[in-house]
Amino acid sequence: MTLIILAHPAFEKSIANKTIIEELQRSKLDLEIRNLHELYPDFKIDPKAEQEFLVRHDTVLFQYPFYWYNMPAILKQWFDVVFEHQFAFGSKGDKLKGKNFLASFTVGGKEKDYTLLEKHHFRVHEFCKNLEQTSYFAQMNFIDPVYSFRTSQADGYTHEEIKSTAKAHAEKLINQLGEI
Amino acid sequence: MTLIILAHPAFEKSIANKTIIEELQRSKLDLEIRNLHELYPDFKIDPKAEQEFLVRHDTVLFQYPFYWYNMPAILKQWFDVVFEHQFAFGSKGDKLKGKNFLASFTVGGKEKDYTLLEKHHFRVHEFCKNLEQTSYFAQMNFIDPVYSFRTSQADGYTHEEIKSTAKAHAEKLINQLGEI
Repeated sequence: MTLIILAHPAFEKSIANKTIIEELQRSKLDLEIRNLHELYPDFKIDPKAEQEFLVRHDTVLFQYPFYWYNMPAILKQWFDVVFEHQFAFGSKGDKLKGKNFLASFTVGGKEKDYTLLEKHHFRVHEFCKNLEQTSYFAQMNFIDPVYSFRTSQADGYTHEEIKSTAKAHAEKLINQLGEI
Repeated sequence: MTLIILAHPAFEKSIANKTIIEELQRSKLDLEIRNLHELYPDFKIDPKAEQEFLVRHDTVLFQYPFYWYNMPAILKQWFDVVFEHQFAFGSKGDKLKGKNFLASFTVGGKEKDYTLLEKHHFRVHEFCKNLEQTSYFAQMNFIDPVYSFRTSQADGYTHEEIKSTAKAHAEKLINQLGEI
């Protein structure tokens, strides 16, 4: 069973993230979705409620847009309050041990811009070390993130292009989740 | 003139961050401090107000504890809403051009744990690429972050040890700010 932690400040208006979630819902996978901005518009995340969802699932999928080379703030708040001492780490903090950790995100621009001499300078995976180490520290099984480029209209891509990219992204996720 | 963006969810109880701020205030530096959790307990950061503070200063110092190999959520929210298109980037987004970007943070554990075979696996600077690239994308002058280890009582350090580490940290910052 997969728990989806969805972090998008304007989910209803989004193209890529909304399409990905819709495709996942249409699949035969057993899913539960936590839409953080809808549940916690004031960022007052309930750690106990979130922890109860976590313990019931084998896989945690984080779905979000890539903002400033990092996750959106509400997802960081989720980690800051939910991954508590003696839950996610510490002498008795093994509640997440062995669960799968899969980040799935959308990048607005194109892949070529994420190289040394182009405007974003770093490869996207270089910005993912905090995810990987967070997963290890909670004794989780880190799965290489799934991400897609060219998902923002502000970067010049059309609604149809983004939708098609998002569908391919969802298919990759569905295959990955099926294999776990 | 230096603008300090302070992001600590329990600043009054903190030892290291509080000591650093107190030492900075005691110095002769010309400072203004924005305590984000105090100003915005519900995370509803006012982008225009924050942008007005930014344009009036030459140096922006971000002061925070290192949480999950990253900045605290409220600071990420600050970047997400304040570093807007046509302010921080875009064809007319040059309002931060040439300003100094200095991250200053406290790490709970010891330096040795932040090496390949130890529990945090990565060096701290490997987790700072998002800061560096955020600064470049806003045409700011990135200064190597200042950070100190052994700043958490949960990691076994005493109040006095942490205070002394924080004072040394503040001295380093004051020297750095004086040189800019």
